Amino acid sequence: MIEKSVYEDYEIDFSDTYTSDDAYYFAFNENRELYLENNELISDINDLDVNFSLFIGKYKNKDCFVVNANFKNGYDLREVYEFDKDLYLMGTKAVLVNDWYISHQFCGRCATKTIVDEKDMMLKCPSCGQVHYPRIAPAIIVAIKDCDKLLMAKHSYHDNIRYALIAGFVEPGESIEEAVHREVKEEVGIKIKNLKYQKSQSWPFPNSLMLAFTAEYESGDIKVDGDEILKAKWFKKDEIIRYESDISISDWLIQEFIDSN
Amino acid sequence: MIEKSVYEDYEIDFSDTYTSDDAYYFAFNENRELYLENNELISDINDLDVNFSLFIGKYKNKDCFVVNANFKNGYDLREVYEFDKDLYLMGTKAVLVNDWYISHQFCGRCATKTIVDEKDMMLKCPSCGQVHYPRIAPAIIVAIKDCDKLLMAKHSYHDNIRYALIAGFVEPGESIEEAVHREVKEEVGIKIKNLKYQKSQSWPFPNSLMLAFTAEYESGDIKVDGDEILKAKWFKKDEIIRYESDISISDWLIQEFIDSN
Repeated sequence: MIEKSVYEDYEIDFSDTYTSDDAYYFAFNENRELYLENNELISDINDLDVNFSLFIGKYKNKDCFVVNANFKNGYDLREVYEFDKDLYLMGTKAVLVNDWYISHQFCGRCATKTIVDEKDMMLKCPSCGQVHYPRIAPAIIVAIKDCDKLLMAKHSYHDNIRYALIAGFVEPGESIEEAVHREVKEEVGIKIKNLKYQKSQSWPFPNSLMLAFTAEYESGDIKVDGDEILKAKWFKKDEIIRYESDISISDWLIQEFIDSN
Repeated sequence: MIEKSVYEDYEIDFSDTYTSDDAYYFAFNENRELYLENNELISDINDLDVNFSLFIGKYKNKDCFVVNANFKNGYDLREVYEFDKDLYLMGTKAVLVNDWYISHQFCGRCATKTIVDEKDMMLKCPSCGQVHYPRIAPAIIVAIKDCDKLLMAKHSYHDNIRYALIAGFVEPGESIEEAVHREVKEEVGIKIKNLKYQKSQSWPFPNSLMLAFTAEYESGDIKVDGDEILKAKWFKKDEIIRYESDISISDWLIQEFIDSN
């Protein structure tokens, strides 16, 4: 996974909505695909069928816009990661702005059309005053080990059902540590000890903030519900089937397990 | 702060919306105040002017409802904390459900009236399909020390302007570690080192997930913008003015600093 900060190249500014001559345009279509020419961002949007355009600050010292447009054959951000890490990093931020703007056009409280705030990344309701910020969904992921083995489970909701680490969204009212214990209990029925936070990652598929932990098996037999979780079992390092890309914090956790065993 | 998990007494279940005879009712008014009788939850809502009622699972093995109603003189959750920690803990979860339901009555994408999902805590749009989960806003807070001194700043947006630790919301696209470095740079202009995650807390005033860190001063002079941050300075442990309650993770960080110096 990338350790570089998006803020090395990017300066937040959400002061206005306008168009600029020499700028970077992060243009997304309805499938959240990025529009690129020769693997690079476009510098004008004259040829695009644009739905909206939002100024979001400076990227590499040039004005930066998020654009929503109608086009085919854009790039999934996972593809972008493979050939340009910087572009991926900023793209993950831009696509969240795109999503936020689309999904908060109307006030959820009273259905009035919202308006963009002049200063913050905020849509506000001129009628009831409700404010609408971009949604970030905190989620936990945990590598549980028992001596030289790592626990992995098959989740039924994955497109390709394969073994993965235990993970899930933080519920309202709980800490991230509570979320780990609850998810582990719900998904595999065991108790864990020595829970340790490791690091985090913004994961825009679609809008998670991944919080990665390690832990050790304490007690209990593996029990899965057969619905959300189909199977769970312990893997020695040679038995783990790896994903192809190092993009995710999940892959980083697995690599750390392999390196330390 | 409370170290107990809300899930010791509470079992998530969001299967239906109904009323029950023997149950716990977490009734909130428009000011997010909890309705109590003799400092306890009510067991029926016949005397209340109810706007909505939602089943949210089992609390201490009894059916548990979040209720929105019109009444005066309820209890702020901070008050509840002082006389009943268990009730506070569950109340913080319940009030987030209350807020979520109120603020997602209409689809933010297309303004259609939303409907409650039968399984998850989710409101969905029958027209465009957009789903609306409760909003949790991840935020960081950091205790920065330089030898035997702790950095605190006066934030202009506090009701009572007083010195507090550096804190702020995680922006879309960044990790929680990036958020700390960015906030510290924005608020006080210095660089920090040895950043270490400590623990987290759900903070329902109104809907934050507080992620607490410690760090050490590395370099730079304190610079504040005079707008969001009015002043910032270093405090020896005897110079820190404490809050009255131990409710927050902020207070826990300050206590840890005092105990270790």
